[in-house]
Amino acid sequence: MDFIRDAIRTIPDYPKKGIQFRDVTTLLKDARAFRAAVDQMVMPWAGAKIDKVAGIEARGFILGGAVAHQLSVGFTPIRKKGKLPHRTLIEEYELEYGSDAIEIHVDGVDETDRVLIVDDLIATGGTAEAAINLLRRAGADVVGATFVIDLPDLGGAKRIEEMGVPVASLVAFEGE
Amino acid sequence: MDFIRDAIRTIPDYPKKGIQFRDVTTLLKDARAFRAAVDQMVMPWAGAKIDKVAGIEARGFILGGAVAHQLSVGFTPIRKKGKLPHRTLIEEYELEYGSDAIEIHVDGVDETDRVLIVDDLIATGGTAEAAINLLRRAGADVVGATFVIDLPDLGGAKRIEEMGVPVASLVAFEGE
Repeated sequence: MDFIRDAIRTIPDYPKKGIQFRDVTTLLKDARAFRAAVDQMVMPWAGAKIDKVAGIEARGFILGGAVAHQLSVGFTPIRKKGKLPHRTLIEEYELEYGSDAIEIHVDGVDETDRVLIVDDLIATGGTAEAAINLLRRAGADVVGATFVIDLPDLGGAKRIEEMGVPVASLVAFEGE
Repeated sequence: MDFIRDAIRTIPDYPKKGIQFRDVTTLLKDARAFRAAVDQMVMPWAGAKIDKVAGIEARGFILGGAVAHQLSVGFTPIRKKGKLPHRTLIEEYELEYGSDAIEIHVDGVDETDRVLIVDDLIATGGTAEAAINLLRRAGADVVGATFVIDLPDLGGAKRIEEMGVPVASLVAFEGE
């Protein structure tokens, strides 16, 4: 995945000092890297009978829209609190300081749906864990979660796999 | 487009009394309607040599990601102020009360790019106009703008076409 890795821009000290921000916009704007990333994100789930993609706001919407299109399945958005217009389920999760919350429409998935979660990056896995909880509360079966970037030192992928959800990613950045 | 129209949910009095909110999440989650919508959004630009899709946050990310994938081109995000990590251009636009602002990365498009704007809905066209201004300031040629929903009574499509940008949409809701 060297050309996928090379298409990711690192922004030092963003959003604060000491953080190396991994910016996928440089990958998304590159036609070849974007298409290769979507292909590679889909590949581990070939034959897995996915019914729906759940994309996490906001960069997970771009990648998730493309992954859903590639799989010819529907897309359901998992949004920050207060953004979805219909009735929702809500799930809080911990941040470094304080907490945040994400929501899904109560009818965003069907009870028989096999769902693939898509986002650009997994770090501590807090958001992904909350997304899995939302999807399971809505009755769906979470088949897997797929990311462009994993920061393995932060343990998110391990945390999600301990919930019984297989994780795939294309590029790992260590020493975060 | 009757089955595309039928897949859009109307939420009365959201976000405030008297507004009929057109909710595309019911379309996005429907595999057949989502794919048909993406196909129809792309069709008017067949042969138009699109280099890049610009999607407007947040629902334009989902549709724009799929449209970019369908066209095998790159995607550049147009985001609310303060969300993009690298250097940006910024454009303010008027709201009913007050103003808002959107941004694009300074290197989000190339100077030779022919760009298609994607969003779920055009109402007054204020956001689309700001997006065109951003793309033109970045040096790109805005080939067109494509939406699922047009609210023609609010005049947005006419406003954008007066800027020299052709507009396409799949479904119109009148009497807004």
